[in-house]
Amino acid sequence: MIGPMGQPCVHTIRVRYAECDRQDVVFNPHYLAYFDMSMTELFRAALGGYDVMTEAGADIVLAHTELTFRGSARFDDELELSVGVLRMGESSLLCEHQVRRREELLTSGTTRHVFVDTDTMNKRAIPGWVREALEGFVVDTG
Amino acid sequence: MIGPMGQPCVHTIRVRYAECDRQDVVFNPHYLAYFDMSMTELFRAALGGYDVMTEAGADIVLAHTELTFRGSARFDDELELSVGVLRMGESSLLCEHQVRRREELLTSGTTRHVFVDTDTMNKRAIPGWVREALEGFVVDTG
Amino acid sequence: MIGPMGQPCVHTIRVRYAECDRQDVVFNPHYLAYFDMSMTELFRAALGGYDVMTEAGADIVLAHTELTFRGSARFDDELELSVGVLRMGESSLLCEHQVRRREELLTSGTTRHVFVDTDTMNKRAIPGWVREALEGFVVDTG
Amino acid sequence: MIGPMGQPCVHTIRVRYAECDRQDVVFNPHYLAYFDMSMTELFRAALGGYDVMTEAGADIVLAHTELTFRGSARFDDELELSVGVLRMGESSLLCEHQVRRREELLTSGTTRHVFVDTDTMNKRAIPGWVREALEGFVVDTG
Repeated sequence: MIGPMGQPCVHTIRVRYAECDRQDVVFNPHYLAYFDMSMTELFRAALGGYDVMTEAGADIVLAHTELTFRGSARFDDELELSVGVLRMGESSLLCEHQVRRREELLTSGTTRHVFVDTDTMNKRAIPGWVREALEGFVVDTG
Repeated sequence: MIGPMGQPCVHTIRVRYAECDRQDVVFNPHYLAYFDMSMTELFRAALGGYDVMTEAGADIVLAHTELTFRGSARFDDELELSVGVLRMGESSLLCEHQVRRREELLTSGTTRHVFVDTDTMNKRAIPGWVREALEGFVVDTG
Repeated sequence: MIGPMGQPCVHTIRVRYAECDRQDVVFNPHYLAYFDMSMTELFRAALGGYDVMTEAGADIVLAHTELTFRGSARFDDELELSVGVLRMGESSLLCEHQVRRREELLTSGTTRHVFVDTDTMNKRAIPGWVREALEGFVVDTG
Repeated sequence: MIGPMGQPCVHTIRVRYAECDRQDVVFNPHYLAYFDMSMTELFRAALGGYDVMTEAGADIVLAHTELTFRGSARFDDELELSVGVLRMGESSLLCEHQVRRREELLTSGTTRHVFVDTDTMNKRAIPGWVREALEGFVVDTG
Protein backbone atom coordinates (compact mmCIF):
# COMPACT_ATOMS: atom_id res chain seq x y z
CA MET A 1 0.00 0.00 0.00
CA ILE A 2 1.24 3.41 -0.90
CA GLY A 3 0.26 6.26 1.34
CA PRO A 4 -0.65 9.72 0.09
CA MET A 5 2.37 11.60 -1.21
CA GLY A 6 3.61 14.63 0.63
CA GLN A 7 4.15 18.11 -0.69
CA PRO A 8 7.41 20.02 -1.01
CA CYS A 9 8.06 22.88 1.38
CA VAL A 10 8.04 26.14 -0.56
CA HIS A 11 9.01 29.67 0.43
CA THR A 12 9.95 32.80 -1.46
CA ILE A 13 12.89 35.14 -1.16
CA ARG A 14 14.08 38.22 -2.96
CA VAL A 15 17.57 38.31 -4.49
CA ARG A 16 19.86 40.61 -2.55
CA TYR A 17 22.38 43.01 -4.04
CA ALA A 18 25.09 41.22 -2.07
CA GLU A 19 24.35 38.01 -3.98
CA CYS A 20 24.89 39.41 -7.48
CA ASP A 21 28.25 39.31 -9.21
CA ARG A 22 29.80 41.30 -12.02
CA GLN A 23 27.99 39.16 -14.59
CA ASP A 24 24.92 40.80 -12.97
CA VAL A 25 23.49 37.45 -11.84
CA VAL A 26 23.38 35.56 -8.54
CA PHE A 27 26.84 34.13 -7.87
CA ASN A 28 26.53 30.35 -7.86
CA PRO A 29 27.62 29.56 -4.26
CA HIS A 30 24.56 31.47 -3.03
CA TYR A 31 22.32 28.74 -4.49
CA LEU A 32 23.84 26.35 -1.99
CA ALA A 33 22.95 28.86 0.73
CA TYR A 34 19.44 28.98 -0.75
CA PHE A 35 19.23 25.18 -0.41
CA ASP A 36 20.27 25.60 3.23
CA MET A 37 17.51 28.16 3.75
CA SER A 38 15.03 25.68 2.27
CA MET A 39 16.19 23.09 4.82
CA THR A 40 15.58 25.61 7.61
CA GLU A 41 12.05 26.20 6.32
CA LEU A 42 11.51 22.44 5.93
CA PHE A 43 12.35 21.87 9.59
CA ARG A 44 10.21 24.86 10.59
CA ALA A 45 7.27 23.40 8.69
CA ALA A 46 7.87 19.87 9.97
CA LEU A 47 9.00 20.48 13.56
CA GLY A 48 8.26 24.09 14.39
CA GLY A 49 11.90 25.07 13.96
CA TYR A 50 15.39 23.78 13.26
CA ASP A 51 16.39 24.50 16.86
CA VAL A 52 13.69 22.13 18.14
CA MET A 53 15.87 19.41 16.70
CA THR A 54 19.25 20.70 17.80
CA GLU A 55 17.99 21.30 21.32
CA ALA A 56 16.93 17.65 21.34
CA GLY A 57 20.51 16.67 20.53
CA ALA A 58 20.31 16.05 16.78
CA ASP A 59 21.83 18.13 14.03
CA ILE A 60 22.55 17.61 10.34
CA VAL A 61 25.73 18.02 8.29
CA LEU A 62 25.93 18.13 4.51
CA ALA A 63 27.59 15.04 3.02
CA HIS A 64 26.93 15.53 -0.68
CA THR A 65 25.25 17.98 -3.00
CA GLU A 66 24.73 18.33 -6.72
CA LEU A 67 23.46 21.41 -8.58
CA THR A 68 22.38 22.02 -12.16
CA PHE A 69 22.17 25.61 -13.38
CA ARG A 70 19.69 26.33 -16.17
CA GLY A 71 18.99 30.04 -15.90
CA SER A 72 20.18 33.09 -14.02
CA ALA A 73 18.50 34.97 -11.22
CA ARG A 74 19.01 38.71 -11.09
CA PHE A 75 18.98 41.43 -8.46
CA ASP A 76 15.60 41.91 -6.78
CA ASP A 77 14.03 38.88 -8.50
CA GLU A 78 11.45 37.06 -6.41
CA LEU A 79 12.45 33.41 -6.25
CA GLU A 80 10.45 30.41 -5.13
CA LEU A 81 12.59 27.93 -3.19
CA SER A 82 11.23 24.41 -2.97
CA VAL A 83 12.48 21.35 -1.13
CA GLY A 84 11.03 17.86 -0.92
CA VAL A 85 12.29 14.69 0.76
CA LEU A 86 13.39 12.02 -1.72
CA ARG A 87 14.55 9.35 0.71
CA MET A 88 15.35 8.83 4.38
CA GLY A 89 17.94 6.21 5.31
CA GLU A 90 18.94 5.09 8.79
CA SER A 91 20.77 8.38 9.36
CA SER A 92 20.72 10.15 6.01
CA LEU A 93 18.24 12.54 4.44
CA LEU A 94 18.17 12.98 0.67
CA CYS A 95 16.30 16.04 -0.57
CA GLU A 96 15.42 17.55 -3.94
CA HIS A 97 15.67 21.31 -4.42
CA GLN A 98 14.32 23.70 -7.00
CA VAL A 99 14.75 27.43 -7.46
CA ARG A 100 12.14 29.05 -9.70
CA ARG A 101 11.36 32.53 -10.96
CA ARG A 102 7.63 32.32 -11.62
CA GLU A 103 7.30 29.31 -13.96
CA GLU A 104 10.97 29.21 -14.93
CA LEU A 105 13.19 26.59 -13.28
CA LEU A 106 16.55 28.29 -12.73
CA THR A 107 18.44 25.80 -10.59
CA SER A 108 17.75 22.29 -9.37
CA GLY A 109 19.74 19.93 -7.23
CA THR A 110 19.94 17.49 -4.39
CA THR A 111 21.39 17.51 -0.90
CA ARG A 112 22.28 14.49 1.22
CA HIS A 113 22.57 15.37 4.90
CA VAL A 114 23.66 13.03 7.67
CA PHE A 115 22.23 13.25 11.15
CA VAL A 116 24.79 13.73 13.91
CA ASP A 117 24.77 13.92 17.67
CA THR A 118 25.19 17.58 18.67
CA ASP A 119 27.66 16.70 21.46
CA THR A 120 29.94 14.26 19.68
CA MET A 121 29.18 15.23 16.05
CA ASN A 122 29.14 11.45 15.39
CA LYS A 123 26.61 9.94 13.00
CA ARG A 124 23.35 8.90 14.61
CA ALA A 125 19.95 7.57 13.53
CA ILE A 126 17.24 10.03 12.51
CA PRO A 127 15.07 10.48 15.64
CA GLY A 128 11.71 8.75 15.18
CA TRP A 129 9.68 11.90 15.73
CA VAL A 130 11.78 13.80 13.16
CA ARG A 131 11.33 10.98 10.66
CA GLU A 132 7.58 11.00 11.18
CA ALA A 133 7.37 14.76 10.81
CA LEU A 134 9.35 14.66 7.55
CA GLU A 135 7.07 11.98 6.04
CA GLY A 136 4.63 14.69 5.07
CA PHE A 137 7.25 16.19 2.76
CA VAL A 138 8.23 13.06 0.86
CA VAL A 139 7.75 13.81 -2.83
CA ASP A 140 7.08 11.51 -5.75
CA THR A 141 10.23 10.89 -7.73
CA GLY A 142 8.40 9.09 -10.51
CA MET B 1 50.36 8.75 -28.95
CA ILE B 2 49.50 10.06 -25.56
CA GLY B 3 51.36 13.10 -24.38
CA PRO B 4 52.65 13.66 -20.87
CA MET B 5 49.88 14.29 -18.37
CA GLY B 6 49.44 17.74 -16.92
CA GLN B 7 49.46 18.78 -13.31
CA PRO B 8 46.62 20.26 -11.29
CA CYS B 9 46.79 23.94 -10.38
CA VAL B 10 47.28 24.29 -6.62
CA HIS B 11 47.13 27.28 -4.33
CA THR B 12 46.64 27.79 -0.61
CA ILE B 13 44.25 29.96 1.35
CA ARG B 14 43.52 30.53 4.99
CA VAL B 15 39.99 30.05 6.33
CA ARG B 16 38.40 33.38 7.22
CA TYR B 17 36.27 34.07 10.26
CA ALA B 18 33.45 35.15 7.92
CA GLU B 19 33.36 31.64 6.46
CA CYS B 20 32.76 29.78 9.73
CA ASP B 21 29.29 29.01 11.01
CA ARG B 22 27.89 28.26 14.46
CA GLN B 23 28.97 24.62 14.12
CA ASP B 24 32.46 26.23 14.15
CA VAL B 25 33.30 24.91 10.67
CA VAL B 26 33.38 26.41 7.18
CA PHE B 27 29.77 26.80 5.97
CA ASN B 28 29.35 24.57 2.94
CA PRO B 29 28.48 27.18 0.24
CA HIS B 30 31.96 28.64 0.72
CA TYR B 31 33.46 25.48 -0.79
CA LEU B 32 31.76 26.39 -4.04
CA ALA B 33 33.38 29.81 -3.77
CA TYR B 34 36.70 28.02 -3.13
CA PHE B 35 36.18 26.06 -6.37
CA ASP B 36 35.60 29.38 -8.12
CA MET B 37 38.86 30.74 -6.67
CA SER B 38 40.63 27.64 -8.00
CA MET B 39 39.24 28.40 -11.46
CA THR B 40 40.63 31.94 -11.21
CA GLU B 41 44.05 30.56 -10.32
CA LEU B 42 43.80 27.99 -13.12
CA PHE B 43 43.22 30.73 -15.69
CA ARG B 44 46.00 32.82 -14.14
CA ALA B 45 48.40 29.88 -14.43
CA ALA B 46 47.23 28.99 -17.95
CA LEU B 47 46.61 32.42 -19.50
CA GLY B 48 48.13 35.01 -17.20
CA GLY B 49 44.73 35.95 -15.81
CA TYR B 50 41.00 35.33 -16.05
CA ASP B 51 40.52 38.79 -17.56
CA VAL B 52 42.82 37.94 -20.47
CA MET B 53 40.00 35.63 -21.54
CA THR B 54 37.05 37.92 -20.85
CA GLU B 55 38.77 40.81 -22.61
CA ALA B 56 39.08 38.52 -25.63
CA GLY B 57 35.31 38.02 -25.55
CA ALA B 58 35.02 34.64 -23.82
CA ASP B 59 33.68 33.96 -20.36
CA ILE B 60 32.51 30.87 -18.49
CA VAL B 61 29.30 30.11 -16.61
CA LEU B 62 28.76 27.21 -14.25
CA ALA B 63 26.37 24.58 -15.63
CA HIS B 64 26.76 21.79 -13.10
CA THR B 65 28.64 21.03 -9.92
CA GLU B 66 28.86 18.20 -7.46
CA LEU B 67 30.51 18.24 -4.03
CA THR B 68 31.33 15.54 -1.50
CA PHE B 69 32.11 16.60 2.05
CA ARG B 70 34.39 14.31 4.07
CA GLY B 71 35.84 16.52 6.78
CA SER B 72 35.46 20.01 8.19
CA ALA B 73 37.75 22.98 7.83
CA ARG B 74 38.01 25.35 10.78
CA PHE B 75 38.82 29.00 11.34
CA ASP B 76 42.38 29.94 10.37
CA ASP B 77 43.15 26.51 8.85
CA GLU B 78 45.51 26.60 5.90
CA LEU B 79 43.84 24.83 3.00
CA GLU B 80 45.30 23.59 -0.25
CA LEU B 81 42.93 24.11 -3.17
CA SER B 82 43.57 22.01 -6.23
CA VAL B 83 41.93 21.95 -9.64
CA GLY B 84 42.68 19.81 -12.68
CA VAL B 85 41.00 19.58 -16.07
CA LEU B 86 39.16 16.28 -16.60
CA ARG B 87 37.75 16.91 -20.06
CA MET B 88 37.23 19.68 -22.61
CA GLY B 89 34.25 19.43 -24.96
CA GLU B 90 33.39 21.73 -27.85
CA SER B 91 32.32 24.44 -25.40
CA SER B 92 32.40 22.79 -21.99
CA LEU B 93 35.13 22.42 -19.40
CA LEU B 94 34.92 19.66 -16.80
CA CYS B 95 37.22 20.08 -13.82
CA GLU B 96 38.05 18.12 -10.68
CA HIS B 97 38.50 19.95 -7.38
CA GLN B 98 40.03 19.02 -4.06
CA VAL B 99 40.31 20.88 -0.78
CA ARG B 100 42.94 19.52 1.59
CA ARG B 101 44.27 20.40 5.03
CA ARG B 102 47.79 18.99 4.91
CA GLU B 103 47.29 15.34 3.88
CA GLU B 104 43.60 15.23 4.74
CA LEU B 105 41.08 15.47 1.89
CA LEU B 106 38.19 17.55 3.25
CA THR B 107 36.07 18.18 0.17
CA SER B 108 36.17 16.99 -3.42
CA GLY B 109 33.97 17.72 -6.37
CA THR B 110 33.59 18.59 -10.01
CA THR B 111 32.53 21.66 -11.94
CA ARG B 112 31.27 21.79 -15.51
CA HIS B 113 31.52 25.26 -17.01
CA VAL B 114 30.26 26.33 -20.41
CA PHE B 115 32.06 28.94 -22.48
CA VAL B 116 29.92 31.90 -23.49
CA ASP B 117 30.34 35.00 -25.60
CA THR B 118 30.76 37.98 -23.25
CA ASP B 119 28.46 40.16 -25.38
CA THR B 120 25.57 37.80 -26.02
CA MET B 121 26.13 35.33 -23.16
CA ASN B 122 25.37 32.62 -25.74
CA LYS B 123 27.30 29.35 -25.76
CA ARG B 124 30.44 29.40 -27.88
CA ALA B 125 33.38 27.10 -28.64
CA ILE B 126 36.40 27.19 -26.34
CA PRO B 127 38.91 29.51 -28.08
CA GLY B 128 41.79 27.47 -29.49
CA TRP B 129 44.45 29.33 -27.55
CA VAL B 130 42.54 28.80 -24.28
CA ARG B 131 42.17 25.10 -25.07
CA GLU B 132 45.90 24.79 -25.72
CA ALA B 133 46.80 26.61 -22.55
CA LEU B 134 44.53 24.37 -20.48
CA GLU B 135 46.06 21.17 -21.91
CA GLY B 136 48.89 21.49 -19.42
CA PHE B 137 46.40 21.03 -16.58
CA VAL B 138 44.64 17.91 -17.85
CA VAL B 139 44.91 15.32 -15.08
CA ASP B 140 44.83 11.55 -15.23
CA THR B 141 41.44 10.25 -14.20
CA GLY B 142 42.58 6.62 -14.14
CA MET C 1 7.29 76.65 8.34
CA ILE C 2 8.06 73.04 9.01
CA GLY C 3 6.20 70.50 6.94
CA PRO C 4 4.92 67.22 8.25
CA MET C 5 7.70 64.79 9.03
CA GLY C 6 8.09 61.63 7.03
CA GLN C 7 8.26 58.08 8.27
CA PRO C 8 11.17 55.65 8.09
CA CYS C 9 10.92 52.76 5.67
CA VAL C 10 10.68 49.52 7.62
CA HIS C 11 10.86 45.89 6.53
CA THR C 12 11.56 42.62 8.29
CA ILE C 13 13.99 39.82 7.56
CA ARG C 14 14.92 36.56 9.18
CA VAL C 15 18.56 35.89 10.14
CA ARG C 16 20.09 33.26 7.87
CA TYR C 17 22.38 30.45 8.97
CA ALA C 18 25.00 31.80 6.55
CA GLU C 19 25.12 35.07 8.51
CA CYS C 20 25.99 33.54 11.90
CA ASP C 21 29.55 33.06 13.07
CA ARG C 22 31.18 30.78 15.62
CA GLN C 23 30.21 33.17 18.42
CA ASP C 24 26.66 32.09 17.35
CA VAL C 25 25.66 35.65 16.41
CA VAL C 26 25.33 37.60 13.16
CA PHE C 27 28.84 38.43 11.91
CA ASN C 28 29.15 42.21 11.90
CA PRO C 29 29.77 42.86 8.17
CA HIS C 30 26.28 41.50 7.46
CA TYR C 31 24.78 44.54 9.22
CA LEU C 32 26.26 46.68 6.47
CA ALA C 33 24.53 44.37 3.96
CA TYR C 34 21.33 44.82 6.01
CA PHE C 35 21.71 48.60 5.64
CA ASP C 36 22.06 48.07 1.89
CA MET C 37 18.87 46.01 1.86
CA SER C 38 17.11 48.84 3.70
CA MET C 39 18.24 51.23 0.96
CA THR C 40 16.77 48.89 -1.67
CA GLU C 41 13.45 48.88 0.20
CA LEU C 42 13.62 52.66 0.61
CA PHE C 43 13.93 53.13 -3.15
CA ARG C 44 11.19 50.57 -3.75
CA ALA C 45 8.88 52.47 -1.41
CA ALA C 46 9.85 55.86 -2.82
CA LEU C 47 10.26 55.11 -6.53
CA GLY C 48 8.81 51.69 -7.18
CA GLY C 49 12.25 50.11 -7.34
CA TYR C 50 15.96 50.78 -7.23
CA ASP C 51 16.25 49.95 -10.92
CA VAL C 52 13.81 52.75 -11.80
CA MET C 53 16.62 55.06 -10.76
CA THR C 54 19.53 53.23 -12.37
CA GLU C 55 17.62 52.88 -15.63
CA ALA C 56 17.19 56.66 -15.54
CA GLY C 57 20.97 57.03 -15.34
CA ALA C 58 21.49 57.64 -11.62
CA ASP C 59 23.06 55.29 -9.12
CA ILE C 60 24.45 55.64 -5.60
CA VAL C 61 27.80 54.71 -4.10
CA LEU C 62 28.58 54.52 -0.40
CA ALA C 63 30.95 57.25 0.77
CA HIS C 64 30.84 56.84 4.53
CA THR C 65 29.18 54.67 7.13
CA GLU C 66 29.21 54.35 10.89
CA LEU C 67 27.76 51.51 12.96
CA THR C 68 27.19 51.05 16.69
CA PHE C 69 26.60 47.52 17.98
CA ARG C 70 24.51 47.19 21.12
CA GLY C 71 23.18 43.65 21.03
CA SER C 72 23.52 40.48 19.04
CA ALA C 73 21.10 38.93 16.58
CA ARG C 74 20.98 35.14 16.42
CA PHE C 75 20.07 32.50 13.86
CA ASP C 76 16.43 32.62 12.74
CA ASP C 77 15.68 35.85 14.67
CA GLU C 78 13.14 38.09 13.00
CA LEU C 79 14.69 41.53 12.62
CA GLU C 80 13.07 44.84 11.81
CA LEU C 81 15.24 46.96 9.51
CA SER C 82 14.47 50.65 9.47
CA VAL C 83 15.89 53.51 7.40
CA GLY C 84 15.03 57.19 7.38
CA VAL C 85 16.51 60.11 5.48
CA LEU C 86 18.43 62.53 7.70
CA ARG C 87 19.60 65.01 5.07
CA MET C 88 19.87 65.44 1.31
CA GLY C 89 22.69 67.58 -0.06
CA GLU C 90 23.29 68.56 -3.69
CA SER C 91 24.42 65.03 -4.50
CA SER C 92 24.60 63.25 -1.15
CA LEU C 93 22.05 61.29 0.83
CA LEU C 94 22.52 60.83 4.59
CA CYS C 95 20.40 58.11 6.16
CA GLU C 96 19.84 56.71 9.64
CA HIS C 97 19.53 52.95 10.12
CA GLN C 98 18.24 50.78 12.93
CA VAL C 99 18.11 47.03 13.37
CA ARG C 100 15.67 45.84 16.03
CA ARG C 101 14.53 42.51 17.42
CA ARG C 102 11.05 43.33 18.68
CA GLU C 103 11.62 46.31 21.02
CA GLU C 104 15.37 45.80 21.37
CA LEU C 105 17.68 48.04 19.35
CA LEU C 106 20.58 45.81 18.28
CA THR C 107 22.47 47.99 15.84
CA SER C 108 22.19 51.58 14.68
CA GLY C 109 24.17 53.59 12.22
CA THR C 110 24.31 56.02 9.37
CA THR C 111 25.15 55.81 5.68
CA ARG C 112 26.16 58.66 3.38
CA HIS C 113 25.71 57.80 -0.27
CA VAL C 114 26.72 59.96 -3.22
CA PHE C 115 24.72 60.02 -6.43
CA VAL C 116 26.69 59.15 -9.54
CA ASP C 117 26.02 59.00 -13.25
CA THR C 118 25.65 55.34 -14.24
CA ASP C 119 27.76 55.83 -17.39
CA THR C 120 30.65 57.85 -16.05
CA MET C 121 30.36 56.97 -12.35
CA ASN C 122 31.05 60.67 -11.74
CA LYS C 123 29.26 62.55 -8.99
CA ARG C 124 25.98 64.13 -10.08
CA ALA C 125 23.07 66.01 -8.49
CA ILE C 126 20.19 64.04 -7.00
CA PRO C 127 17.49 63.98 -9.73
CA GLY C 128 14.59 66.23 -8.75
CA TRP C 129 12.01 63.47 -8.91
CA VAL C 130 14.14 61.24 -6.70
CA ARG C 131 14.57 64.05 -4.17
CA GLU C 132 10.83 64.66 -4.07
CA ALA C 133 10.07 60.99 -3.61
CA LEU C 134 12.55 60.72 -0.75
CA GLU C 135 11.03 63.72 1.08
CA GLY C 136 8.36 61.41 2.48
CA PHE C 137 11.04 59.48 4.36
CA VAL C 138 12.82 62.40 6.03
CA VAL C 139 12.85 61.69 9.76
CA ASP C 140 13.07 64.01 12.72
CA THR C 141 16.56 64.07 14.12
CA GLY C 142 15.58 66.07 17.18
CA MET D 1 59.15 59.18 28.67
CA ILE D 2 57.63 58.10 25.45
CA GLY D 3 58.79 54.81 24.00
CA PRO D 4 59.40 54.11 20.36
CA MET D 5 56.23 54.01 18.29
CA GLY D 6 55.01 50.72 16.94
CA GLN D 7 54.25 49.72 13.39
CA PRO D 8 50.92 48.76 11.85
CA CYS D 9 50.34 45.12 11.00
CA VAL D 10 50.13 44.75 7.23
CA HIS D 11 49.11 41.84 5.03
CA THR D 12 47.96 41.47 1.46
CA ILE D 13 44.97 39.77 -0.07
CA ARG D 14 43.57 39.36 -3.55
CA VAL D 15 39.98 40.45 -4.30
CA ARG D 16 37.74 37.44 -4.87
CA TYR D 17 35.06 37.15 -7.52
CA ALA D 18 32.53 36.53 -4.73
CA GLU D 19 33.27 39.98 -3.32
CA CYS D 20 32.45 41.97 -6.48
CA ASP D 21 28.99 43.31 -7.21
CA ARG D 22 27.21 44.35 -10.38
CA GLN D 23 28.92 47.75 -10.26
CA ASP D 24 32.04 45.57 -10.83
CA VAL D 25 33.65 46.69 -7.55
CA VAL D 26 34.02 45.17 -4.09
CA PHE D 27 30.65 45.35 -2.33
CA ASN D 28 31.09 47.58 0.71
CA PRO D 29 30.25 45.11 3.53
CA HIS D 30 33.31 43.09 2.53
CA TYR D 31 35.54 45.94 3.72
CA LEU D 32 34.26 45.29 7.21
CA ALA D 33 35.22 41.64 6.73
CA TYR D 34 38.64 42.88 5.55
CA PHE D 35 39.00 44.85 8.80
CA ASP D 36 38.17 41.64 10.66
CA MET D 37 40.87 39.79 8.74
CA SER D 38 43.32 42.53 9.70
CA MET D 39 42.43 41.96 13.35
CA THR D 40 43.14 38.24 12.94
CA GLU D 41 46.55 39.06 11.47
CA LEU D 42 47.19 41.60 14.24
CA PHE D 43 46.60 38.95 16.90
CA ARG D 44 48.70 36.45 14.96
CA ALA D 45 51.57 38.94 14.82
CA ALA D 46 51.17 39.97 18.46
CA LEU D 47 50.23 36.68 20.15
CA GLY D 48 50.90 33.90 17.66
CA GLY D 49 47.21 33.56 16.87
CA TYR D 50 43.74 34.77 17.70
CA ASP D 51 42.94 31.42 19.31
CA VAL D 52 45.79 31.85 21.81
CA MET D 53 43.61 34.57 23.29
CA THR D 54 40.24 32.80 23.11
CA GLU D 55 41.73 29.65 24.60
CA ALA D 56 42.90 31.81 27.50
CA GLY D 57 39.31 32.94 28.04
CA ALA D 58 39.29 36.34 26.33
CA ASP D 59 37.53 37.28 23.12
CA ILE D 60 36.60 40.54 21.42
CA VAL D 61 33.30 41.86 20.10
CA LEU D 62 32.87 44.84 17.81
CA ALA D 63 31.22 47.82 19.51
CA HIS D 64 31.64 50.53 16.90
CA THR D 65 33.09 51.02 13.46
CA GLU D 66 33.35 53.79 10.94
CA LEU D 67 34.41 53.52 7.30
CA THR D 68 35.24 56.08 4.63
CA PHE D 69 35.25 54.95 1.00
CA ARG D 70 37.53 56.84 -1.38
CA GLY D 71 38.09 54.46 -4.26
CA SER D 72 36.94 51.12 -5.53
CA ALA D 73 38.74 47.81 -5.51
CA ARG D 74 38.10 45.47 -8.43
CA PHE D 75 38.21 41.75 -9.07
CA ASP D 76 41.68 40.21 -8.67
CA ASP D 77 43.24 43.45 -7.35
CA GLU D 78 46.00 42.92 -4.81
CA LEU D 79 45.13 44.91 -1.70
CA GLU D 80 47.29 45.84 1.25
CA LEU D 81 45.36 45.68 4.52
CA SER D 82 46.85 47.62 7.40
CA VAL D 83 45.83 47.91 11.03
CA GLY D 84 47.41 49.85 13.88
CA VAL D 85 46.35 50.32 17.50
CA LEU D 86 45.20 53.86 18.27
CA ARG D 87 44.27 53.42 21.93
CA MET D 88 43.72 50.76 24.56
CA GLY D 89 41.26 51.45 27.36
CA GLU D 90 40.51 49.27 30.37
CA SER D 91 38.62 46.83 28.19
CA SER D 92 38.41 48.48 24.77
CA LEU D 93 40.71 48.43 21.78
CA LEU D 94 40.54 51.22 19.20
CA CYS D 95 42.23 50.47 15.88
CA GLU D 96 42.85 52.31 12.63
CA HIS D 97 42.44 50.47 9.32
CA GLN D 98 43.55 51.18 5.80
CA VAL D 99 42.96 49.34 2.54
CA ARG D 100 45.36 50.28 -0.25
CA ARG D 101 45.96 49.24 -3.84
CA ARG D 102 49.64 50.03 -4.30
CA GLU D 103 49.91 53.69 -3.29
CA GLU D 104 46.20 54.45 -3.52
CA LEU D 105 44.18 54.57 -0.30
CA LEU D 106 40.81 53.03 -1.14
CA THR D 107 39.16 52.72 2.25
CA SER D 108 40.03 53.81 5.76
CA GLY D 109 38.26 53.43 9.04
CA THR D 110 38.32 52.58 12.69
CA THR D 111 37.09 49.72 14.84
CA ARG D 112 36.44 49.75 18.56
CA HIS D 113 36.35 46.26 20.04
CA VAL D 114 35.49 45.37 23.62
CA PHE D 115 37.13 42.47 25.41
CA VAL D 116 34.72 39.89 26.80
CA ASP D 117 34.97 36.73 28.85
CA THR D 118 34.50 33.76 26.50
CA ASP D 119 32.23 31.96 29.01
CA THR D 120 29.94 34.76 30.08
CA MET D 121 30.42 37.12 27.12
CA ASN D 122 30.56 39.89 29.77
CA LYS D 123 32.96 42.79 29.41
CA ARG D 124 36.37 42.18 30.99
CA ALA D 125 39.71 43.95 31.23
CA ILE D 126 42.28 43.43 28.48
CA PRO D 127 44.60 40.69 29.80
CA GLY D 128 48.00 42.19 30.73
CA TRP D 129 49.95 39.94 28.37
CA VAL D 130 47.66 40.84 25.48
CA ARG D 131 48.05 44.54 26.24
CA GLU D 132 51.81 44.24 26.29
CA ALA D 133 51.88 42.33 23.03
CA LEU D 134 49.70 44.93 21.34
CA GLU D 135 51.97 47.81 22.47
CA GLY D 136 54.25 47.06 19.53
CA PHE D 137 51.45 47.97 17.13
CA VAL D 138 50.46 51.32 18.62
CA VAL D 139 50.67 53.87 15.82
CA ASP D 140 51.23 57.59 15.91
CA THR D 141 47.98 59.44 15.42
CA GLY D 142 49.89 62.64 14.79
